[in-house]
Amino acid sequence: MSNTTKKLAVLGSTGSIGQQALDIVRSFPDKFKIIGLAGGKNTKLLAEQISQFQPQLVSSTLDFSLPDKTKFSSMEEIATHPEVDLVVIATSGKTGLAPTLAAIRSGKKVALANKEVLVMAGEIIVAEAKRHQAQIFPIDSEHSAIWQCLRGEKAEVTRLILTASGGPFYHYSPAQLAKVTVEEALRHPTWKMGKKVTIDSATLMNKGLEAIEAHWLFSIPFNKIEIVIHPQSIIHSLVEFADGSLKAQLSVPDMRFPIQYALSYPKRLANSRLPRIDLGRLNSLTFETINYSMFPCLELALDAGKKGGAYPAVLCAADEIAVELFLKQHISFPGISEIIAKTISLHQGTATPTLDEILAADAWARETALEVINKASLCWKQ
Amino acid sequence: MSNTTKKLAVLGSTGSIGQQALDIVRSFPDKFKIIGLAGGKNTKLLAEQISQFQPQLVSSTLDFSLPDKTKFSSMEEIATHPEVDLVVIATSGKTGLAPTLAAIRSGKKVALANKEVLVMAGEIIVAEAKRHQAQIFPIDSEHSAIWQCLRGEKAEVTRLILTASGGPFYHYSPAQLAKVTVEEALRHPTWKMGKKVTIDSATLMNKGLEAIEAHWLFSIPFNKIEIVIHPQSIIHSLVEFADGSLKAQLSVPDMRFPIQYALSYPKRLANSRLPRIDLGRLNSLTFETINYSMFPCLELALDAGKKGGAYPAVLCAADEIAVELFLKQHISFPGISEIIAKTISLHQGTATPTLDEILAADAWARETALEVINKASLCWKQ
Repeated sequence: MSNTTKKLAVLGSTGSIGQQALDIVRSFPDKFKIIGLAGGKNTKLLAEQISQFQPQLVSSTLDFSLPDKTKFSSMEEIATHPEVDLVVIATSGKTGLAPTLAAIRSGKKVALANKEVLVMAGEIIVAEAKRHQAQIFPIDSEHSAIWQCLRGEKAEVTRLILTASGGPFYHYSPAQLAKVTVEEALRHPTWKMGKKVTIDSATLMNKGLEAIEAHWLFSIPFNKIEIVIHPQSIIHSLVEFADGSLKAQLSVPDMRFPIQYALSYPKRLANSRLPRIDLGRLNSLTFETINYSMFPCLELALDAGKKGGAYPAVLCAADEIAVELFLKQHISFPGISEIIAKTISLHQGTATPTLDEILAADAWARETALEVINKASLCWKQ
Repeated sequence: MSNTTKKLAVLGSTGSIGQQALDIVRSFPDKFKIIGLAGGKNTKLLAEQISQFQPQLVSSTLDFSLPDKTKFSSMEEIATHPEVDLVVIATSGKTGLAPTLAAIRSGKKVALANKEVLVMAGEIIVAEAKRHQAQIFPIDSEHSAIWQCLRGEKAEVTRLILTASGGPFYHYSPAQLAKVTVEEALRHPTWKMGKKVTIDSATLMNKGLEAIEAHWLFSIPFNKIEIVIHPQSIIHSLVEFADGSLKAQLSVPDMRFPIQYALSYPKRLANSRLPRIDLGRLNSLTFETINYSMFPCLELALDAGKKGGAYPAVLCAADEIAVELFLKQHISFPGISEIIAKTISLHQGTATPTLDEILAADAWARETALEVINKASLCWKQ
């Protein structure tokens, strides 16, 4: 282990992003060392990871036997451990909120994959990061692209252009959308991801959440954020500068690119295991103006982002409930946006909510979304 | 005029790039001031430019009356004038060589549009720039794109990908190429440029010269330089880094983008007169692997670049003669590459030629190219 070895905590190590982050760590044993891991319900996988990386600290909601030098700890303790340089937040939902804040308040570097953290509490997170001089490195491919394009640039940004594959249903009619099955919705054309984010990609909610994240990460107003459909997912996003010149970042759609960049930043590490682009064989990169009316979730997200306060938290919570119920086949695909819209319409806004108020809004939205569904299903039964 | 006003010399001000550079200066009267101008045979235009910009020094091969405060001077004197911050080399052919070297030896910043300077004498220019801590800013759209993509990056570059529109004849058969007229060759699909560079674009000689320039500008070996056909000329070039991630620079094909970037660097100036990209309306960016056998000029250029020495100077000189004779309808379109190939085959290489040896090779190649043509036309007459 050399002086330049970066010491990591990976929270959410058994999820899709967590596993890929550990895959990168595995490729560069002299560059990274795992200090702490936090896993979900897949304790078999977590035990394997512990055995391979021998972390000092482990967080798990379940109990199981640990090696001698490893002990149980909370995610906050892992995120603030003095030896940790960089905390990878690969959790999902609001789980990442507390450890992210803890890491930031300890002045750690944070590699953030957990969308809800910035969507729910962007204002608080960004203010705390500034106060504690903590840096936030995005792990999402779109935000990583923007971050890479902004590298070395000081000029005013006139547009951030987020690319969206459009998901599997981009050219569906409303009648076709009504009949979408869970299986179809889980078949993303370009990216291999977890179930929740795959459904969010199909509704384009995901792109709306990304716009909110971009707003906070790059302090850019919503009217300078554009979304364009780019089905091949090769150009991961673009930045337009004051002079009208654009920069784009490209790669094969593989999450290991943005994960490795966030882990190794400011360095770029040669990794022969990552696939290379052959532009001549790619042949064509296409773009389409987005048809907002087909994707009410996207509009709901952008609207919640602009309203601010706890609106994005309500949006996230209602979306989580709605997607869960869609995956359980309790509601239809268009039902997802209907539930979210109804829940948001019942929310009483607060201007600059505290973290507790945000969490309260989250709890309220979950209950409300369920009520909305129950009422609707009563109506359907009548 | 403020403290931050950049003082410019524009050599070749009446040419296509020179005029557009002055167009940028016109847009930002408080950012730039013209100290010196050097024009070609279009004295009417030069007189207008002098009247508008009131430079202290003017260089012209022709004599005409000047305003009181303006005096005639040599290009070298203008390029080394103590007040000048940045010298724009918008001359063509070998004309730019001496003033570029003079500017570099005075430690000036040089914005370089004159391809032949680096192609003919890249080794000398780069060494002198290093010794005198002079910076060279490329004005070509491809090199500007690479320069912009490299901004803020320190990682190893694994590939430079130069894009080429392919010119008007990309899908022509050899039989069709043999019948190409001057008028057809001057009709470039995406860029509005001078005659010489338009023909060089049609033969793809231009792309070969750009590869040689890129080799010197970015100290990159030829085996890491790729060329890909991109007919829309929107992505101006790409850089691949060690981690496999690519960055690209995009804009509407308009030379004012790279010119303004070189003039304003490190700043990017808001210029509402430059057109913006609408990706949704663009619809599609296409790429094709290059068919080298169709473009012998490109192969000749890459080969001369790899051989080094005075080979690139011989290539440039023979190309200048051949293109001139094609424009005068003395030779056919495929004749251009035939003359260059024959001339190069007669050249005796020198390992690290001095500037005088390069200029001697240039003179020799011009004579030889003409002899090659005369011999060929004698054969044709028989």
